[in-house]
Amino acid sequence: MRIDVIPTLGEVRFELLAGRTAIVIDVLRATTTITAALESGSSGVLPAESVQQAVFLRGKEDVLGGERRCRRIPGFDLGNSPLEYTPEAVGGRRVVLTTTNGTRALQKAAPADKIVAASLLNGEACAGAAADWKRDIAIVCAGTAGAFCFEDGLCAGLIVSALQRLCAGGADVCDLGRSLAACYERHADDPAAPLAACASGRRLASIGCEADTAFAARVNVSEVVPLLKDGVLVPCAPAREHLAR
Amino acid sequence: MRIDVIPTLGEVRFELLAGRTAIVIDVLRATTTITAALESGSSGVLPAESVQQAVFLRGKEDVLGGERRCRRIPGFDLGNSPLEYTPEAVGGRRVVLTTTNGTRALQKAAPADKIVAASLLNGEACAGAAADWKRDIAIVCAGTAGAFCFEDGLCAGLIVSALQRLCAGGADVCDLGRSLAACYERHADDPAAPLAACASGRRLASIGCEADTAFAARVNVSEVVPLLKDGVLVPCAPAREHLAR
Repeated sequence: MRIDVIPTLGEVRFELLAGRTAIVIDVLRATTTITAALESGSSGVLPAESVQQAVFLRGKEDVLGGERRCRRIPGFDLGNSPLEYTPEAVGGRRVVLTTTNGTRALQKAAPADKIVAASLLNGEACAGAAADWKRDIAIVCAGTAGAFCFEDGLCAGLIVSALQRLCAGGADVCDLGRSLAACYERHADDPAAPLAACASGRRLASIGCEADTAFAARVNVSEVVPLLKDGVLVPCAPAREHLAR
Repeated sequence: MRIDVIPTLGEVRFELLAGRTAIVIDVLRATTTITAALESGSSGVLPAESVQQAVFLRGKEDVLGGERRCRRIPGFDLGNSPLEYTPEAVGGRRVVLTTTNGTRALQKAAPADKIVAASLLNGEACAGAAADWKRDIAIVCAGTAGAFCFEDGLCAGLIVSALQRLCAGGADVCDLGRSLAACYERHADDPAAPLAACASGRRLASIGCEADTAFAARVNVSEVVPLLKDGVLVPCAPAREHLAR
């Protein structure tokens, strides 16, 4: 099984996605928020590209969430802090979500056969599902403003590291994936500290959102695998085949 | 002090180099070979872009070295294996060297104020010299065929990790540099194994050059800092200021 890590959206290529499983990562904060929403019992998360599209797509019972420049969009129910996506706020309801990088990353992954949204919260669960599907894998890091960002690389490393264990002997990992797996393994005992110190962590702290970074730094606390189906991310129960192997 | 890591030659930008110290890395094998040549007493290494240019620039007493597709160029004295650059072969003589990626990387770094060639052999020595010069730093990974490669990232991580120690509190490291420093720290005890397992290591093994990879995996065994002066890489004695701090 071939595993490629794509460090920024600018490096997404059709041939790295076609026929593959795409694992899309935007740890701070879109994919963490998506995981949190589904963990809180939301029926699904619809990623929208623009504020206008989000407002247009919102159904009567939907929750409207999102950010621009890290802040809640005026008139929206929720921002992009995973802490807002509680069972009280989203339980049993669909969320329409628009964010700066995360939703664009999910759209860029469109040529893939299956698309899941991963964060540190559910990294191993996503790796397990992707291993079960037995397709080559493209791990797409959303990055920040076109550049590589530490937190998405850390999560890619978590997933590569898990896949190397799950596909014993059978994982053919690209060089960047090898580097990021080692990065994750170096920080596995305490991912919160480097996450707070990286560029996105410092930016969130500067606007009083350090609690979001701490929330996002919790590794493998969720079994939810958000799978894109008909344009909506819905929870997919992992087959757990890999546990039996 | 700002420290940026540029993962591939395609991502080199003038503004990341101008006024800075550039540390150019091509671990397998150009910058390892350059370090070995100077360590063996070569008076300097002249990097040439093309085979024709190398032949044209070669002086009567010079040694002509280089590779295309990992193999020695017909008619050249030496290939690109650092093991060939012994005191007997290059001592007291200048080397004219042309390689696929390494010499191009040195040329791409031209806008920088100072340019040094680093490998795992002399990573900490290069970091020490760059710290002494007190300019912002751009670490340029040559990569392979336009793509990021593990071994150059590992060496970038070694250098970032050393700079973080040397510039206590004062190193403002880009996110990729943070990831690669962690990768290096994960493998610091045994860099030979991941180097042999990465794409370049496997390619060299496939043509019988695994000894080159093992040679290149020896960390901080050389104090030589190859500094580009008038188009020739010459040994620069590190000021060692940082040792006194």
